[in-house]
Amino acid sequence: MALKQEVLFRLVRRDQGSGARAGLLHTAHGVIQTPIFMPVGTQATVKTLTPEDLCAIHAQIILNNTYHLYLRPGSEIVREAGGVQKFSNWNRPILTDSGGFQIFSLAELNKIDESGFAFRSHLDGSSHYLTPEKVVAIQRDLGSDIMMVLDECVPYPCEYRYAKKSTELTIAWARKSLQAVQQYPAVHGFSQYLFAIVQGSVYKDLRRNCCEELIRLDFPGYAIGGLSVGEPKDVLYELTALCAELLPENKPRYLMGVGKPEDILEGIERGIDMFDCIIPTRNGRNGTVFTRSGPINIKSAQYKRDFGPLDPDCNCQVCQNYTRSYLRHLYNAKELLVLRLLSYHNVHFYLQLVAQARTAILCSEYRQWKHQFLSHYSLRAADRRSLASD
Amino acid sequence: MALKQEVLFRLVRRDQGSGARAGLLHTAHGVIQTPIFMPVGTQATVKTLTPEDLCAIHAQIILNNTYHLYLRPGSEIVREAGGVQKFSNWNRPILTDSGGFQIFSLAELNKIDESGFAFRSHLDGSSHYLTPEKVVAIQRDLGSDIMMVLDECVPYPCEYRYAKKSTELTIAWARKSLQAVQQYPAVHGFSQYLFAIVQGSVYKDLRRNCCEELIRLDFPGYAIGGLSVGEPKDVLYELTALCAELLPENKPRYLMGVGKPEDILEGIERGIDMFDCIIPTRNGRNGTVFTRSGPINIKSAQYKRDFGPLDPDCNCQVCQNYTRSYLRHLYNAKELLVLRLLSYHNVHFYLQLVAQARTAILCSEYRQWKHQFLSHYSLRAADRRSLASD
Repeated sequence: MALKQEVLFRLVRRDQGSGARAGLLHTAHGVIQTPIFMPVGTQATVKTLTPEDLCAIHAQIILNNTYHLYLRPGSEIVREAGGVQKFSNWNRPILTDSGGFQIFSLAELNKIDESGFAFRSHLDGSSHYLTPEKVVAIQRDLGSDIMMVLDECVPYPCEYRYAKKSTELTIAWARKSLQAVQQYPAVHGFSQYLFAIVQGSVYKDLRRNCCEELIRLDFPGYAIGGLSVGEPKDVLYELTALCAELLPENKPRYLMGVGKPEDILEGIERGIDMFDCIIPTRNGRNGTVFTRSGPINIKSAQYKRDFGPLDPDCNCQVCQNYTRSYLRHLYNAKELLVLRLLSYHNVHFYLQLVAQARTAILCSEYRQWKHQFLSHYSLRAADRRSLASD
Repeated sequence: MALKQEVLFRLVRRDQGSGARAGLLHTAHGVIQTPIFMPVGTQATVKTLTPEDLCAIHAQIILNNTYHLYLRPGSEIVREAGGVQKFSNWNRPILTDSGGFQIFSLAELNKIDESGFAFRSHLDGSSHYLTPEKVVAIQRDLGSDIMMVLDECVPYPCEYRYAKKSTELTIAWARKSLQAVQQYPAVHGFSQYLFAIVQGSVYKDLRRNCCEELIRLDFPGYAIGGLSVGEPKDVLYELTALCAELLPENKPRYLMGVGKPEDILEGIERGIDMFDCIIPTRNGRNGTVFTRSGPINIKSAQYKRDFGPLDPDCNCQVCQNYTRSYLRHLYNAKELLVLRLLSYHNVHFYLQLVAQARTAILCSEYRQWKHQFLSHYSLRAADRRSLASD
């Protein structure tokens, strides 16, 4: 296992003039080109899209959620199905988030102690107790290529005192999770990699200390958690840079839950390799469409007679086949098809964004490319803010 | 126009031993093999499915609705888009229902007189007045391959007196509609065919008289309307047979809004060529799945660990790629993807049903094939009734 973990990530190229980097992640279900965006498929489905759709738009890895699949359909059913790839007919790599964030945001949390979380299910109120060890065991049943440790994701703002105590807990759990990897071997016949999660709220010393402690444990990859939870943008960028600089160069870095296109580009510039976010799918279902000229809202009356594509610079199937006028009609008529078509376009947009970023890194032109992209992606900041609140 | 109308339908083969027949419908957007099932795309979309999906499952013609598209997005927008095929990216034939049924079932009907309907929109309460002539003009804007006359669809039960008056109105409107075809020529550069609709409630003399009057007007095709609205099954079958026997052999016959698989097979046996129904899509969205062994409900706990396909005898993409266990999970988790996957499978089931019926007719084995199909499709009648009420 230790040997296999060492070859998970290969750094292919560092951009000259920024922290951006291009790499490869070698998993049992395929090689992933980084930087990468991972579409979110919480309940073993990226909402409205089939695996076939996701392949067509070149998704390389998707996210599933341990908390959700543990509760429904139950990890033993996924195990019986042969793992979550077979269960959901997605045969490429999967990363499972541990569910710490969901226990806080969805479940009724009754108790948190050194051993784990006691909570009630958001589905039926049933009582559960999850420990770092059990969360690894569940992810063994699920058979994800990349497993995440159970962590405590503190809200923003958070008092220093609590953040410090919580970060210590997260570090202790990371240690237990690593031991659990040995205790619960893989059940589906392929290697799974466990990532640690850096916490510490907005406190630099806590973040720094957390990085150092987790690096000592030598995980195959590291995530930066607890950001994009309401803190100012400059804090997000600064803490991302701080962690990315501390984390080892030969391990992948994953900025959890981030974010808008501009945030992803800032993250890449600071040395992040992996991103996930519900924005392309959720905002798509709300009628927000990402285009090279900035986000638009398809509901707007200005598209009533607009027989052009969503994004003239896009080559996805939705832009090849449908007009803004038709998609606006579907949205106004509450037709389910539009949720699928806008999700498809938006995820394609995100995947193209990181693919183009990678090309720019390989050419050592990341900053120029980013500047060029962002000046074209030129909605006024005020418009962007109003769309972000969707 | 008269010449083109005459070549719309070609009778290919009559089954020996039943009224079933195989034919071809020649339209500007392609040739349709009959008997055919037409998936319902009320608002210029078959709910949850793309034109690409529909082509993959060999849909040859779909239904759109004049009333709905007139109100939203407005027929002038569809006209500007180049017709409803270009608007919706469906490049095969389209039949537009006139909307008479929708004015009764959805709108607030204020007045009906010899000239037309005065009603308020179900969307925004706006006032509208639709005449048989205007409905033809709207269908010219839409550019459907087959247009339907405006008719009055009386509810069941209906008093003889009212049914008689209403049938006379429908005949008078059919005459006006035929004149309107000359008055409002095609605007999209291809031929459109106008079908009459036989009404008469459950009264044989009214149905007979209506057939005779409409035949005299020499329409390119004839629909049987006002059935499958609550009358007993034997009445549906008897009136279908009565009309089909009266209607000319060289014109297509379309039984509107029918129905369940067994009803379609009974209709084919009595000489019907065209069917439409919302059952495969609507029931799919309610979790009902059609299989060769009868309908099942995917929500059922018995499928929790069922890692087989929806229908072992089906070769559609959903049956090739997904298990009952996974689809049940998606349904219980309220995931939108399942609505699409079940709709896809169910429409495929209906299209396979009529395709196999056609093959049986071409071999002059329709009755044997139907008997074989129905004995396999063998849920107890009680189970079927409970499913039908979904």
